[in-house]
Amino acid sequence: MAARIPATPAPTTTKSVSAGTFFIRAGILAPSWARRLLRYDGRVIRVDINIPSRAYPALIESGLLRRSGTLLREIFPERQSVMVVTVAAVRRRWGKQLASALKKGKFVPSFIEMPDGERFKTLKTVEGVAEKLLKASADRKSILVAFGGGVVGDVAGLLASLYMRGLDFVQVPSTLLAQVDAAVGGKTGVDLRQGKNLLGTFHHPRLVVIDPQLLSTLPEREFRAGLFEVLKCGVIRDPAIFEFMEQNRELILRRDAASLERVISASVKVKADVVAADERESGLRRILNFGHTLGHALEAETGYRKVLHGEAVAWGMVAATMIAEERGRLDKEAARRIISGVQGYAMWPKFEVPARNIYRRLAHDKKTLNGVVHFVLPTGIGSVDIACDVPERVVMRAIEQSQALTKAV
Amino acid sequence: MAARIPATPAPTTTKSVSAGTFFIRAGILAPSWARRLLRYDGRVIRVDINIPSRAYPALIESGLLRRSGTLLREIFPERQSVMVVTVAAVRRRWGKQLASALKKGKFVPSFIEMPDGERFKTLKTVEGVAEKLLKASADRKSILVAFGGGVVGDVAGLLASLYMRGLDFVQVPSTLLAQVDAAVGGKTGVDLRQGKNLLGTFHHPRLVVIDPQLLSTLPEREFRAGLFEVLKCGVIRDPAIFEFMEQNRELILRRDAASLERVISASVKVKADVVAADERESGLRRILNFGHTLGHALEAETGYRKVLHGEAVAWGMVAATMIAEERGRLDKEAARRIISGVQGYAMWPKFEVPARNIYRRLAHDKKTLNGVVHFVLPTGIGSVDIACDVPERVVMRAIEQSQALTKAV
Repeated sequence: MAARIPATPAPTTTKSVSAGTFFIRAGILAPSWARRLLRYDGRVIRVDINIPSRAYPALIESGLLRRSGTLLREIFPERQSVMVVTVAAVRRRWGKQLASALKKGKFVPSFIEMPDGERFKTLKTVEGVAEKLLKASADRKSILVAFGGGVVGDVAGLLASLYMRGLDFVQVPSTLLAQVDAAVGGKTGVDLRQGKNLLGTFHHPRLVVIDPQLLSTLPEREFRAGLFEVLKCGVIRDPAIFEFMEQNRELILRRDAASLERVISASVKVKADVVAADERESGLRRILNFGHTLGHALEAETGYRKVLHGEAVAWGMVAATMIAEERGRLDKEAARRIISGVQGYAMWPKFEVPARNIYRRLAHDKKTLNGVVHFVLPTGIGSVDIACDVPERVVMRAIEQSQALTKAV
Repeated sequence: MAARIPATPAPTTTKSVSAGTFFIRAGILAPSWARRLLRYDGRVIRVDINIPSRAYPALIESGLLRRSGTLLREIFPERQSVMVVTVAAVRRRWGKQLASALKKGKFVPSFIEMPDGERFKTLKTVEGVAEKLLKASADRKSILVAFGGGVVGDVAGLLASLYMRGLDFVQVPSTLLAQVDAAVGGKTGVDLRQGKNLLGTFHHPRLVVIDPQLLSTLPEREFRAGLFEVLKCGVIRDPAIFEFMEQNRELILRRDAASLERVISASVKVKADVVAADERESGLRRILNFGHTLGHALEAETGYRKVLHGEAVAWGMVAATMIAEERGRLDKEAARRIISGVQGYAMWPKFEVPARNIYRRLAHDKKTLNGVVHFVLPTGIGSVDIACDVPERVVMRAIEQSQALTKAV
């Protein structure tokens, strides 16, 4: 049932390999299957997510969607029914391509639409999609594919862990934010009126298919919102990708395919390393929340409409950097680089929220224990620390100063 | 994080031991703690549920509720907040006793009421209770106690697996059905309009506290509904308890304390053995569904109001026994004993449902794969088998004949 667990998880690997090889290495395929995959001439980037319960790969390549059916067939040799949970816009633009890829893999796909947007990230939506799954005759052997952005991934992932007490599922993220963050790591969830992601599970996909080509139709603000998560990965753990983001701003903003593959795979690797070491967020995984504590409060305070999640996190990173500098945990130059790194990709939406209101929201964060708010603070580019001793006035001032900064842009 | 998994789960043990000893054996307690427990003079019956992820004990003893706070304190030495999810009737009758037991264990209990009855086993109820938990300041370190019958256990268990992605929880079942079945095994769930338990998780409690004294206020029909699950355990795996039920009908119906401890612990042991061997219902665990395939269909067809779950299962067992006999899988005498065993405890409610309607419901059962209905059929008293080749006419006739039988009583 459950695989034997190594005492220390194997380090995560990123490799450019032919599609055949990766499946053999991942232990998913018999060599004969792999030979068939060798027909493909693409060079896929693979990042393994070595969680204790069951390792799974994220595959990154421009144009990978076209091969997704064959990839799925390798992992699920005997399944038929694939339930694709998606939103109207994604289905319109990419649905046909996915459907024909799945058919090529000899699957029978059904498409199930859910309403779009953070405000539909609710149990009610989960229930509605579940009823549609039943109508489409989904049973325990059906594979659920989450095909869309973070909201689709979170809702469909939760549904996959609940429907008949658990379906296998696959993430095919269609936004940059989902590709670099949400699709990897197994967190699923929905919101309550009182806050985000308050109900959810840990339920890992069997495979993550990342095709940067899907980003070609992404609105500019959404695209940039995803880039902030890449910056986040740089600050918390990977100075090289932070530098790459500093030095290749134009190439990246032009959505150059090779650059996108690079920033996406680096971010997925950071996430994979952290998740493999701490699947259920008891320690290390909390560093992924850099920028999120304040960011979530801002999103809640602005009703999840004005500010995109990635933008809120970007602002939260700026504020956290200011706190870190003020507390003497981070030197001036590193702070400057982080803040201008963020500003280099920013198209701030207008928002103005009383610092007091944001501060009050922090108490409801689910990372808050016994009323103590925890902040992830950078100690350099590539390393962070967790602080639970930040005085209220320091937080308040950082909230105000960072808001002023966004207005100045 | 996850414990090392033995290749074969250790056999489940049932023992009468002093409360101190059981905790040492279960590896939960340091000996010093155990010595303190030795002050209690009661002799608790312990059944270990040895699932791979983490073993946990079920404790059975008349009057155990009074000691529940101290028991919890042994398992959770550093927690404070206990959220008791319950229904009004149970709280009225037993709430004070539980509250004072928890305070004796130095916990701070909050009571949260949910609406009573199967028709409230929905995601909407889960959401409502979640919002109440937030208001009561439940955080990740809060312990959730499910205090009530099967519906409370299923809803609160699901909530425990979802709230902030997982709380520790404890089952304190207040009905016989929940004590012998639902509280053990880690299944949680809610219904959809189209069928029962279609959304849920596997999330095991850390402890199950079973106090047969709570049954003293149970209505007669509900009490008997629980006894059918005991009979089920006898038929599928434990001929001795079946015989005990045959021979001690009056004692049991009088709710004699020692007899109740006996039938409850025998049933919990059957469930524990099966669950330890097959946590996620990929094989052996399906035998627990004896009587349930047809029973669920009957419940759905009668709108979950007329027939109690245990009664529906009882009828389903009779029908399945008729199918088994008809198919030559079970001899006449064993069939007679099972049917009259059930009838000996029956107070059938009036119901009359066209066999066709029940048959049609079977296709929506979540055990149905690719449209093939699976039946758990007895092959003797103490053993069952799974059949997927039962012709429609045989099922139809069994549905009709067993309904006729209930009317004759």
